[in-house]
Amino acid sequence: MATERVAIYPGSFDPLTLGHVDIMQRGSSLFDKIIVGVLKNVDKEPLFTVDERLAMIRDTFRGQDNVEADAFSGLLVDYAASRKATTIVRGVRAISDFEYEFQMALMNRRLAPTIETVFMMPAEEYSYVSSRLVKEVARLGGNIAGLVPKRVEKRLYERVRE
Amino acid sequence: MATERVAIYPGSFDPLTLGHVDIMQRGSSLFDKIIVGVLKNVDKEPLFTVDERLAMIRDTFRGQDNVEADAFSGLLVDYAASRKATTIVRGVRAISDFEYEFQMALMNRRLAPTIETVFMMPAEEYSYVSSRLVKEVARLGGNIAGLVPKRVEKRLYERVRE
Amino acid sequence: MATERVAIYPGSFDPLTLGHVDIMQRGSSLFDKIIVGVLKNVDKEPLFTVDERLAMIRDTFRGQDNVEADAFSGLLVDYAASRKATTIVRGVRAISDFEYEFQMALMNRRLAPTIETVFMMPAEEYSYVSSRLVKEVARLGGNIAGLVPKRVEKRLYERVRE
Amino acid sequence: MATERVAIYPGSFDPLTLGHVDIMQRGSSLFDKIIVGVLKNVDKEPLFTVDERLAMIRDTFRGQDNVEADAFSGLLVDYAASRKATTIVRGVRAISDFEYEFQMALMNRRLAPTIETVFMMPAEEYSYVSSRLVKEVARLGGNIAGLVPKRVEKRLYERVRE
Amino acid sequence: MATERVAIYPGSFDPLTLGHVDIMQRGSSLFDKIIVGVLKNVDKEPLFTVDERLAMIRDTFRGQDNVEADAFSGLLVDYAASRKATTIVRGVRAISDFEYEFQMALMNRRLAPTIETVFMMPAEEYSYVSSRLVKEVARLGGNIAGLVPKRVEKRLYERVRE
Amino acid sequence: MATERVAIYPGSFDPLTLGHVDIMQRGSSLFDKIIVGVLKNVDKEPLFTVDERLAMIRDTFRGQDNVEADAFSGLLVDYAASRKATTIVRGVRAISDFEYEFQMALMNRRLAPTIETVFMMPAEEYSYVSSRLVKEVARLGGNIAGLVPKRVEKRLYERVRE
Repeated sequence: MATERVAIYPGSFDPLTLGHVDIMQRGSSLFDKIIVGVLKNVDKEPLFTVDERLAMIRDTFRGQDNVEADAFSGLLVDYAASRKATTIVRGVRAISDFEYEFQMALMNRRLAPTIETVFMMPAEEYSYVSSRLVKEVARLGGNIAGLVPKRVEKRLYERVRE
Repeated sequence: MATERVAIYPGSFDPLTLGHVDIMQRGSSLFDKIIVGVLKNVDKEPLFTVDERLAMIRDTFRGQDNVEADAFSGLLVDYAASRKATTIVRGVRAISDFEYEFQMALMNRRLAPTIETVFMMPAEEYSYVSSRLVKEVARLGGNIAGLVPKRVEKRLYERVRE
Repeated sequence: MATERVAIYPGSFDPLTLGHVDIMQRGSSLFDKIIVGVLKNVDKEPLFTVDERLAMIRDTFRGQDNVEADAFSGLLVDYAASRKATTIVRGVRAISDFEYEFQMALMNRRLAPTIETVFMMPAEEYSYVSSRLVKEVARLGGNIAGLVPKRVEKRLYERVRE
Repeated sequence: MATERVAIYPGSFDPLTLGHVDIMQRGSSLFDKIIVGVLKNVDKEPLFTVDERLAMIRDTFRGQDNVEADAFSGLLVDYAASRKATTIVRGVRAISDFEYEFQMALMNRRLAPTIETVFMMPAEEYSYVSSRLVKEVARLGGNIAGLVPKRVEKRLYERVRE
Repeated sequence: MATERVAIYPGSFDPLTLGHVDIMQRGSSLFDKIIVGVLKNVDKEPLFTVDERLAMIRDTFRGQDNVEADAFSGLLVDYAASRKATTIVRGVRAISDFEYEFQMALMNRRLAPTIETVFMMPAEEYSYVSSRLVKEVARLGGNIAGLVPKRVEKRLYERVRE
Repeated sequence: MATERVAIYPGSFDPLTLGHVDIMQRGSSLFDKIIVGVLKNVDKEPLFTVDERLAMIRDTFRGQDNVEADAFSGLLVDYAASRKATTIVRGVRAISDFEYEFQMALMNRRLAPTIETVFMMPAEEYSYVSSRLVKEVARLGGNIAGLVPKRVEKRLYERVRE
């Protein structure tokens, strides 16, 4: 009998974009379970708290049992091992992404040789969507409909106006 | 009768380099008018004020009617629309530039589908010239003649010595 | 009074794709006239003759006066000069494209300093569409609807079956 | 109960390298079965026949039930569907690889939206190993031990000497 | 009689990695002397002081006369000239490195045309090793053995725990 | 006493460009001797014979004793060893160059670990000059003055007219 295949999709998700959601959907059809790991990064000043970000993800995947949101700190590979995940999923949108991703994946392989990293592509309509750019556009009053989930859109406008 | 074709060339121009001037000259021969849009970026600590940067550009293009310098804040595409510009001009020097430029251009197209971005190349002698690098060299006492306009050169040395 | 601004959009167009059409439409809104220059490349074995390719382009832009299709041989900059074009338009889809395009543009600038090259982006949905790939898919019996104009689609299937 | 997850790893494998073997091993731990699809490319002049290449792969994975070698022609996504594979595995070694891979993956997604492409990295020691380069080195009498499986090494030297 | 060939290998070395050591060894076989120039960068907050970093390098190259560690501030090319060095050595690991390196090398050539920059590759096993990433892994409690020299390893763990 | 440092600068040089000459000059100031290795490539159809190419190089470096032109076949590292060269010099103009160069350099290092590859940059004015492009421009009647040495220019025009 096949063992359950669990993958981690790590990130900041500050906020969740439709590019992230697209990778989560694609990943959830490849693995038995995908755990979205929200990094508790103490250094940066996030727009949304970790709890708010977890709620956004859980909200979006309500009723879809094999996508789970969780927070983690420390080394990604330690977290993956603690969750019995054997795969790390990363979305790659562009060349510059890929360089950095490659470096991280090789380091993670050294730290934990049995955990594999796989790269997946979002739909091309999300090829230019990043959390950073979406926040910037929202702050300047631009329209972000179609770039983030509907509820995230509303919360993001509220937050940047505060 | 042809409508007047107006283009925006946006940037920080802190300070103006000869690479920028080169793109402005090239752009001014392609369009009826080119508006150099100096971004009022509240987050960063610039070396020169927006007014100083506008003066540098106006000084350089004195007598050349179809190059205009102006300051803007907010979304670039909103500013472009308010100035009846239909094109955004961006200089591309290298691959790493291009990645970022591509992402911004696709986002701007989503925000304003009728405003087109075109990319132009500076002369190859300016392929390594950036405002950041010019400032760094000036601070360390290096020779920046031939990288910035003559008057900018003088002002830049004065400023970094303050 | 403004001089008429004429641009050349050169290529093989064997066959015309919707990515090409997208660049032609965008270019035609930036310039008074865009001349699609079909290269008579004696070295390669094209799938369609130059006349067939010209017909495909003319067919697609029937009724749109400022897009003209023409064939040329020899140096692109000589052809541009003979047509009083001051700009070369190139579509850029990806990094690898851009490298080659940059090299050609710098060479063309050396050969004819007054002719400027501008780069434009197709819609992201065409970011992976090339004549070569479309031909390959058609040969293998794949569906190319939405990648080439309707009439090109029909002719391409006929041709690869011959 | 989980459905069996089958992936296709397509390529020419002319000849099989240890970089390929590395990806096959990694892939075989991610999926229930990995089918190595040897492309019958009628256009090129291969060094080894399709049957010889299939034998090399089978030889290397003897006793490892979830790696299967098979030949295919036509569209990769059609072959994948016929084998009930839901994933295409591709190894990525470098930027230039990735550009091409991205283009192919987006085209394959358009042709068959339910088949997903995932990218995996070989060990960094194989980052410069390609079939083409290995053949070139062997032809010039260089040492290819450690770049291809032992038996492939012997057969490759014999073949290039013929 | 040949003049002594002296090269500078500049960097922050905060901390020294085995990737740096690899380039130093390779450089020391190409030149009569290699001076490792530790940049006194006043802007950043380093983990180790300049003196600590110099000690790490000297410790590693004890008994190897043609590798010397020294600190410098100001323009690299001025420092190189003061040390009668005619070459700058830079390690290149990846594309993104190379872009930045190219820009710096062209600027340095402009500032001092007689000083040449040469690029060398570390062993592929160090292709993903950077000071920044090593510090991050150490901070999160990961294993950095084999990425930095033995003594650096011990000191790095001590420092990040402070 | 320091051993003589000999470097190989390999290539096809069909024909020699001023970009090549620039790298040769730069290399000749870094090493005691630079051997320009003209590859006898039996597969391709060159424009100039190996002897003609050797003559072009010798002609250009007449009187400069430490630049020598020689032809070779077989593995580059074997040729380097036979000439007691410890370094391979390669010019890098752009990203796409660099990818391929990196792969070759890693393979050469595996084949001969004691022979080091160093990368050097030509002057930025030659950043777009390649033998292939120069030939293409000459064939189409374009002006190649300033891209190749004077005598190569004359011979190239004669050859493409034959």
